[in-house]
Amino acid sequence: MSTSTGAEVRRLARSGGWRGPTPGLAPGYAQANLVCVPRDLAFDFMLFCRRNPRPCPLLDVTDPGDPEPKVVAPGADLRFDVPRYRAYRYGELIQECDDLTAWWRDDLVAFLLGCSFTFENALARAGVPLRHLEQGRNVPMYVTSIPCTPAGAFQGPMVVSMRPLTPAQAEQASMICSRYPLAHGAPVHVGDPHKIGVRDLGRPDYGDAVEIRAGEVPVFWACGVTPQAVATRARPPLLLTHAPGHMFLTDLLDGELEGKTSLSA
Amino acid sequence: MSTSTGAEVRRLARSGGWRGPTPGLAPGYAQANLVCVPRDLAFDFMLFCRRNPRPCPLLDVTDPGDPEPKVVAPGADLRFDVPRYRAYRYGELIQECDDLTAWWRDDLVAFLLGCSFTFENALARAGVPLRHLEQGRNVPMYVTSIPCTPAGAFQGPMVVSMRPLTPAQAEQASMICSRYPLAHGAPVHVGDPHKIGVRDLGRPDYGDAVEIRAGEVPVFWACGVTPQAVATRARPPLLLTHAPGHMFLTDLLDGELEGKTSLSA
Repeated sequence: MSTSTGAEVRRLARSGGWRGPTPGLAPGYAQANLVCVPRDLAFDFMLFCRRNPRPCPLLDVTDPGDPEPKVVAPGADLRFDVPRYRAYRYGELIQECDDLTAWWRDDLVAFLLGCSFTFENALARAGVPLRHLEQGRNVPMYVTSIPCTPAGAFQGPMVVSMRPLTPAQAEQASMICSRYPLAHGAPVHVGDPHKIGVRDLGRPDYGDAVEIRAGEVPVFWACGVTPQAVATRARPPLLLTHAPGHMFLTDLLDGELEGKTSLSA
Repeated sequence: MSTSTGAEVRRLARSGGWRGPTPGLAPGYAQANLVCVPRDLAFDFMLFCRRNPRPCPLLDVTDPGDPEPKVVAPGADLRFDVPRYRAYRYGELIQECDDLTAWWRDDLVAFLLGCSFTFENALARAGVPLRHLEQGRNVPMYVTSIPCTPAGAFQGPMVVSMRPLTPAQAEQASMICSRYPLAHGAPVHVGDPHKIGVRDLGRPDYGDAVEIRAGEVPVFWACGVTPQAVATRARPPLLLTHAPGHMFLTDLLDGELEGKTSLSA
């Protein structure tokens, strides 16, 4: 699996050959968050993403009812090609499922958003350590006091992920990640968690706590859970997403995202 | 007037002190195309712009009913701050008017799109000659055979503007304009008009023909008339735009657009 392509992972997801999480799969291929909302809410959600590009970097947007993400994975089908999905009604999680056959509608618009795995790969290549991977855990994520810029029904605080680094590593990480604005970009905060409304690093809102060693500071990045949290809060009649950690694999190489703030430009 | 700011031009437009075209006003301030559509069509139009960034570089998008473009001119009012407007019903031009009082609705979404004046200023600074300005004419514009990528009701051919240049000047212009993707970017074609479906340079679809001298080639740029032409074709119940050449003046300096493909990122 570790030498596969994005297309191979999608094929396995579609055939039922892979239902697990996607970190580490098809290394070098950009992974993406999936959010599907009814057309009625699609303008507001797209505007929300435009106004909050750090947590919500838009990679692709489909026509209503069209499950093919033509920009990042032509020929793919968003109803089948993700290993695991979640369906929400009015903000309540109703089902985790293997495909969207039971849920897809002709008025659904799918949004694919950049994912932290892209910058984590770049950090790993540069020798910057990633504690949650060393410890075999999910990255810790926290709801902050940083408000997103609202758009219609979509509003709420930014969710961040945290990786402990030495100040020198944090500087290096900041430089590297700033080259990937379509994968959350540079950290939004380094240092004091209280400054962004995070009270207890030991109790993340999502994911697992990780060890912070002497001489390390917490480094916070805008996180792709933000759009999901915001979309859930908006309580749309129907909301479909990937299951946490079970991302959509695109045909894009991480390197193709480098230096870009927009894919279609 | 030639030393004014964007805000000063807007104030004059609002007070009725200026009803004329805007080329040459507030030099250095980025001017913008205005397109307002009902909220029902706003998702499709925003998606159209995203898919066709060369003719439709998005600078700002308002909340439904909100006439304030908060990104490019906080405090401005799009109902009053443009010197002259056009109102269309089902694709038919109904009225040219001084403000949008009679037309504004709570469900209208305003889109501001980058304008060629930004790159023309950069070309002029670099000494690249602009024939239509030398001849005191409007730039010639042509409907091409280049299809835009459609989105919902919005579809149609790209409209281009043309400026005759020597091959060396064309190369220089291409380099300069590529630094302004939010103002249509580099030319989409240099040389043979027939290759892009333009039959007669002497008979432009919009604007005025200009002289092409010996040793010059026609250089074609994606044009901001495209979104207006496409929006008219979609025949929305209501469509409000600026009148040709009567643009919205932003608070942004042309230089602030340089090198960016997105303003909010």
